[in-house]
Amino acid sequence: AQSSVTIYGKLDLAVGKPVLTEDKQVMDNTGSRLGFRGVEDLGGGLKAVFGMEHRFSPDTGTQANANFWNGYSTVGLVTNFGMVNLGRQYTPAFIMMQNQIDPFGGDTVAAGRDVGMRFGGITKVRVADSIRYDLSVAGFNFGASIAESASNNGGVSNDKPISVAANYSAGPFWVGVGYENPAADEDKVWNIGGRYNFGFMTLAAGYGKGTTAAGADAKGWLIGATVPVGAFDIKAMYAANDVDGAGETKKAGIGAHYNLSKRTKVFADATKIGGSATANLDNKTGYDLGIQHNF
Amino acid sequence: AQSSVTIYGKLDLAVGKPVLTEDKQVMDNTGSRLGFRGVEDLGGGLKAVFGMEHRFSPDTGTQANANFWNGYSTVGLVTNFGMVNLGRQYTPAFIMMQNQIDPFGGDTVAAGRDVGMRFGGITKVRVADSIRYDLSVAGFNFGASIAESASNNGGVSNDKPISVAANYSAGPFWVGVGYENPAADEDKVWNIGGRYNFGFMTLAAGYGKGTTAAGADAKGWLIGATVPVGAFDIKAMYAANDVDGAGETKKAGIGAHYNLSKRTKVFADATKIGGSATANLDNKTGYDLGIQHNF
Amino acid sequence: AQSSVTIYGKLDLAVGKPVLTEDKQVMDNTGSRLGFRGVEDLGGGLKAVFGMEHRFSPDTGTQANANFWNGYSTVGLVTNFGMVNLGRQYTPAFIMMQNQIDPFGGDTVAAGRDVGMRFGGITKVRVADSIRYDLSVAGFNFGASIAESASNNGGVSNDKPISVAANYSAGPFWVGVGYENPAADEDKVWNIGGRYNFGFMTLAAGYGKGTTAAGADAKGWLIGATVPVGAFDIKAMYAANDVDGAGETKKAGIGAHYNLSKRTKVFADATKIGGSATANLDNKTGYDLGIQHNF
Repeated sequence: AQSSVTIYGKLDLAVGKPVLTEDKQVMDNTGSRLGFRGVEDLGGGLKAVFGMEHRFSPDTGTQANANFWNGYSTVGLVTNFGMVNLGRQYTPAFIMMQNQIDPFGGDTVAAGRDVGMRFGGITKVRVADSIRYDLSVAGFNFGASIAESASNNGGVSNDKPISVAANYSAGPFWVGVGYENPAADEDKVWNIGGRYNFGFMTLAAGYGKGTTAAGADAKGWLIGATVPVGAFDIKAMYAANDVDGAGETKKAGIGAHYNLSKRTKVFADATKIGGSATANLDNKTGYDLGIQHNF
Repeated sequence: AQSSVTIYGKLDLAVGKPVLTEDKQVMDNTGSRLGFRGVEDLGGGLKAVFGMEHRFSPDTGTQANANFWNGYSTVGLVTNFGMVNLGRQYTPAFIMMQNQIDPFGGDTVAAGRDVGMRFGGITKVRVADSIRYDLSVAGFNFGASIAESASNNGGVSNDKPISVAANYSAGPFWVGVGYENPAADEDKVWNIGGRYNFGFMTLAAGYGKGTTAAGADAKGWLIGATVPVGAFDIKAMYAANDVDGAGETKKAGIGAHYNLSKRTKVFADATKIGGSATANLDNKTGYDLGIQHNF
Repeated sequence: AQSSVTIYGKLDLAVGKPVLTEDKQVMDNTGSRLGFRGVEDLGGGLKAVFGMEHRFSPDTGTQANANFWNGYSTVGLVTNFGMVNLGRQYTPAFIMMQNQIDPFGGDTVAAGRDVGMRFGGITKVRVADSIRYDLSVAGFNFGASIAESASNNGGVSNDKPISVAANYSAGPFWVGVGYENPAADEDKVWNIGGRYNFGFMTLAAGYGKGTTAAGADAKGWLIGATVPVGAFDIKAMYAANDVDGAGETKKAGIGAHYNLSKRTKVFADATKIGGSATANLDNKTGYDLGIQHNF
């Protein structure tokens, strides 16, 4: 049985100071995980796929969420006409679009994803009790998911969460678009973005526009750059959003990530937030110095 | 260390409608699990064995029970005179008898085990804080377990749960018997059953008779058939029980399970319940369409 | 990915009677665990190391602590100038000193570690949100850790827990010293001890002296012996502590541990406690008969 399952994971810990606190601390804000996954070739292009991923906080040893397998837990089939998975899983709009623009990929204190691409509490990273379809052809990827209402809406409506995304890459060029209609009545959001790898630098930019569950207009954008310098990746991003009634949030982040190997890096990052929505908040700067290991 | 532990598991998810609800949903009613187990050969017929099995609900990513290792968690010794295991484990009456008649093995909406072979809330699938002895000789298997009262009785008595079972198989023929005296004062149950593989079809039938914790007489029976047709297993079962005071419960189930490999299948099932005990209930039919992968 | 992670663990279960109860029971007082760990060689003496260890109670199948990864969860770097780990981890004073004298290593009913080397509720086995530095040179080992206050002090102070330890071994000889200043205001403790392997027997003795969080003086000591006889290890220990205001606690323990292999043993132990601090307690004797398997 052992040969049919792969164990993988990520541990990431840092010392630093998050924004909105003055406490220096041991931090784990980068999704440490332990997962099990596998593929069985059934012949004729058919494959069975499965996986489940636990998320935890290695600074304290606690599971990161009430759901033990919060990362995902799925079983599905890969066919010549696309892949279908059932279970708890990423929304296509998140994993194929919203997570693709931020040079930090949502990790470290400097990440901009949750300011510029996800805002107003509209989007979901994952849905439970869901069916998702994915198709990849010649650089083009398409994904769509639908999920049960009750397990995803927190009791606010009968809407079934829907998420659709597509992206395309060719050589140095990547472009993507996503649409999400989560489980509340009025909430929905569009995202669009792209990346271009100039060789000495990758530039990325994304935009999003939507409506919150409370019916407020919301929009956001993010620009990012990654510059490889030897074993370093120098990363910088600027993100902002504006939610009617709540005001504007801005965030700038910069980091130097030194790759010790393909699997291990040490990193240092700094960030500052601002904008009218943060006017009454203290401690708007943050920084970290940490290590990440993937296995 | 890695060579001494085997990782195994099962993921099973379906779309369908369980009985007693009108909600179509993503369902996981087939005991999805992740386990770790191993055997060490100590020489002279002696072996150390261990294992623990986590149960979870892949539709939501949550652990299925308050006990993380709800499946079992045991360590023991195999000798030439039988095997002894300590820990949380299946009762012999469940795993060697009650679970052997239902062609669905307790899985899917169509399963009959918990109607015809387990009824009146008498039986336990597993006991905690237990000692179990097993002996297998020439097709004959015997098991007996005893467990602490406090961790298994929910505070109702001082009875130590006892479970004893035996079965025998020879070629196409299988017969088994089980006895269980759980942790409450009056509860006890006998089960008996058999299977015969005619080649084109396996027929199974079982019967149980007991007394509930409240002192009520209870009995049940189950008949099942499995017909292999190419890669399909066509399964059908009918089960019923009658508990004094509660009345009669009947259940019919049918399914078509298509084996994509030894480890992976897709399946469709339908079921209907009835009987006087269900007279005031709505939504007595159910169905599912799903995939199961074992690793 | 599988090649980069090692799975290991320990299952230990016994039947017996702990002290302070008259209930015979299935017992798991020896830290059963499941862990994942790995090392990546980064070249030039640099290595990335990680690990996490789950503790559970195999008698019931439950996780042993609110923290799922209660054993430890760390990621760090090994350099030519020592090792640094971040996360939840053992204190140096515990793992390099307090745990080294008891011949039972804290396991079984007969263990003396938590009487003679850890007393008055002063010491911590592990700290969360910590940084630890370790250096090993020519038989000499040094460790020091500091941790956040809030996640370790139960709300009693702003002290950052500090732990420092060193030990040295040469041939049959081992000596160690530890100092710990946990998270409360007044608590601190020194431990010192040694072992000598005479070939036919290993003798060990340790002493500790400190102040409890409430400001009371506390001291303890432990002597132990391990005598290998064929596949048996005969173990005996005597431990005592005296905490101002609480009085004296004494414990004697003896055991016969039969090694079925390097990884598996069966064991029988007996113990008795006494002293003025236990004067009003009943059931001061305990015993166990069990099996331990490491994988």
